[in-house]
Amino acid sequence: MNVREEAMKLHREYQGKLGVASKVPLRDKRDLSIAYTPGVAEPCKEIKGNKDLSFELTCRGNMVAVVTDGTRVLGLGDIGPEAAMPVMEGKCVLFKVFGDVDAVPICLDTKDPDKIIETVKLLQPSFAGINLEDLSSPKCYDIEDKLKEQLDIPVFHDDQHGTAIAALSALIGALRFVKKDLKTAKIVVNGVGAAGSAIGRLLVNAGAENVIMVDVNGALYDGMPGLNRIQQQLARTTNKQGLRGNLAEVAKGADALIGVSAPGAFTPEIIQSMAKDPIVFAMANPVPEIMYDEAKAAGAKVAGTGRSDAPNQVNNVTVFPGIFRGALDVRARQINEEMKIAAAYAIADLISEDELREDYVVPDAFDPRVAPAVAAAVARVAMETGVARVKVDPEEVRAKTAARVKLGK
Amino acid sequence: MNVREEAMKLHREYQGKLGVASKVPLRDKRDLSIAYTPGVAEPCKEIKGNKDLSFELTCRGNMVAVVTDGTRVLGLGDIGPEAAMPVMEGKCVLFKVFGDVDAVPICLDTKDPDKIIETVKLLQPSFAGINLEDLSSPKCYDIEDKLKEQLDIPVFHDDQHGTAIAALSALIGALRFVKKDLKTAKIVVNGVGAAGSAIGRLLVNAGAENVIMVDVNGALYDGMPGLNRIQQQLARTTNKQGLRGNLAEVAKGADALIGVSAPGAFTPEIIQSMAKDPIVFAMANPVPEIMYDEAKAAGAKVAGTGRSDAPNQVNNVTVFPGIFRGALDVRARQINEEMKIAAAYAIADLISEDELREDYVVPDAFDPRVAPAVAAAVARVAMETGVARVKVDPEEVRAKTAARVKLGK
Repeated sequence: MNVREEAMKLHREYQGKLGVASKVPLRDKRDLSIAYTPGVAEPCKEIKGNKDLSFELTCRGNMVAVVTDGTRVLGLGDIGPEAAMPVMEGKCVLFKVFGDVDAVPICLDTKDPDKIIETVKLLQPSFAGINLEDLSSPKCYDIEDKLKEQLDIPVFHDDQHGTAIAALSALIGALRFVKKDLKTAKIVVNGVGAAGSAIGRLLVNAGAENVIMVDVNGALYDGMPGLNRIQQQLARTTNKQGLRGNLAEVAKGADALIGVSAPGAFTPEIIQSMAKDPIVFAMANPVPEIMYDEAKAAGAKVAGTGRSDAPNQVNNVTVFPGIFRGALDVRARQINEEMKIAAAYAIADLISEDELREDYVVPDAFDPRVAPAVAAAVARVAMETGVARVKVDPEEVRAKTAARVKLGK
Repeated sequence: MNVREEAMKLHREYQGKLGVASKVPLRDKRDLSIAYTPGVAEPCKEIKGNKDLSFELTCRGNMVAVVTDGTRVLGLGDIGPEAAMPVMEGKCVLFKVFGDVDAVPICLDTKDPDKIIETVKLLQPSFAGINLEDLSSPKCYDIEDKLKEQLDIPVFHDDQHGTAIAALSALIGALRFVKKDLKTAKIVVNGVGAAGSAIGRLLVNAGAENVIMVDVNGALYDGMPGLNRIQQQLARTTNKQGLRGNLAEVAKGADALIGVSAPGAFTPEIIQSMAKDPIVFAMANPVPEIMYDEAKAAGAKVAGTGRSDAPNQVNNVTVFPGIFRGALDVRARQINEEMKIAAAYAIADLISEDELREDYVVPDAFDPRVAPAVAAAVARVAMETGVARVKVDPEEVRAKTAARVKLGK
């Protein structure tokens, strides 16, 4: 059976992929009186006196809503909230399996940003975090920004930030392998949608000083017409030399080329025009800007794609489970830039200098060390940057995450 | 340890009671490509072409939202959405354990009925049913009615209808035991809030012709001032003789007395004034209108309460798991009066005439036959009344429910 047939069979056979489970025993009336009435009144009264206890005494502390309106699902576009369900519940399954985070799919029957914001606000008491997913751009920026302002729990648009963190972690590994420096490397990002913009911003925040963002109209520069608010910000903080021109022109001499654009966008000629030991991450999904083997054949020293059938898979699944695991464990109020950067380094640091190879700059998605390392780093930096509500020992977060996440079982 | 201490310990130790679980294997990259990208695109595309497939191909088909605003939680009153979480997730656990229904707690940060309605509408694509819970009266009526009009999935306010069905099932059993007829029995319901009103309405719809509703101002009669819309309807369909007077006055000669009011509301004198073989269900929680033993001592032939420490416990847990199990299995558009009445009879029918005893007119909450019987009856009547989207064999529903629900484990 091919993947298509097998996927249909699986979804039909199991009637979806996600269920709930009781964490407590419920065998008899005594259990019922403890978990439900009358015993349940006690935690209710405690929380009434101190709302924050809802994180400790209820499932809220480990609950994340995976929220979408179904307007930009995978490469399928605006397929609606019902049709988005398989992706959202899939995401929830990944949250559980890779990070032991309890996530539930919330597919909203509206495309109105204000209604989405209002709804998520009203849902806040049941959740410790919000993972936005597959919202169309540019409204995803406003939705995320306003929710961040108005909510007191982390709000994370994974298509932006998960992708950006995964890309940064891969780039760190690749730059280490070719012995170049993030600060000085010329990094060209092709595609300035939600993911590309987030990559650009994270690179700059991580200290990269020579980033050039490219879209169909060429390199972004300060004052370029037709940019949205996020692109304008990026145009100001990148391309300090004010380069103009299309991808082929600005990619000349680049140390790294990151694609979140479209199949076929990277030609062998472009790669051949780059600096020595070029790094190429072609992350368009499922068909990358250039296939792994073609990128290598064109001279890429390190290449990577989003595909699981080639080396150096750049995959959000290395990111969001650990990010939320760490954020939940310190009951973070938000996931800030410092936490994102720490997550990227935590992933990259799993591969020592000795272990780095051109086809191994990114840890495997199923490497059981990933989520514990990310969670520990995120928890540590959350505390350092003052967004943690509780103090924990990051090494304890790592150990506990390793114990609760059982990959491959 | 007492129940209070044990409840706090349990909630703290497990950090709440509910988690999610993957229904599918996720051991390696192949599994990932089936359950997530790229395979997941297939069910998405199928559902895009036919939204109803979201019930079959995603977890939606078995997902119920347990929705509250925390304004009337247990006997605690308006404690807010955070403090309502322990009850809501407890309810979700009961849904799972007793009915294998996947339910998630949705505690909304608003008391505004319009916002509650709007939010639940927007949540519809992720759920196959809505269980409203612990909403204050009278707004609960409007919220339920409007949602029923506007949604295409069942909306069920358990505090009203679960309680009413449980009461009706107990009354059916008790009347059988004392060999009286629901149609002609004089049934006095004390308390005309959400639960009492629902009991009154269900009794009438089930064929009871001599029901008298009583609140603090006495028996409800047509034209009585100060009634809300629901009470006005009840005043028109009950108390055909136009009795006036307080509980003690109208309870004289009653065959059955049902309390959803307040501790101490039923005195021995009231019970002694009833007809031969009086039936007394004192359902105020956790302290009933009269304790079981006191009711019996006062001459009640059959008594029952909401308490698990006395015989004939009248408990919603015999109702809502099976109701939703059956409704979901036929993908019902609503839960109508006929389905509710069928559920009550299905529960009562579990005890044969031979088995009926004065302290056994209600099956035990952990009787494993309950949810299967209710589910089968509800599925059958949903099909008969035209609210089922799919056809199933009710006996198959019963057998499957029995197989998936493993009580006492």
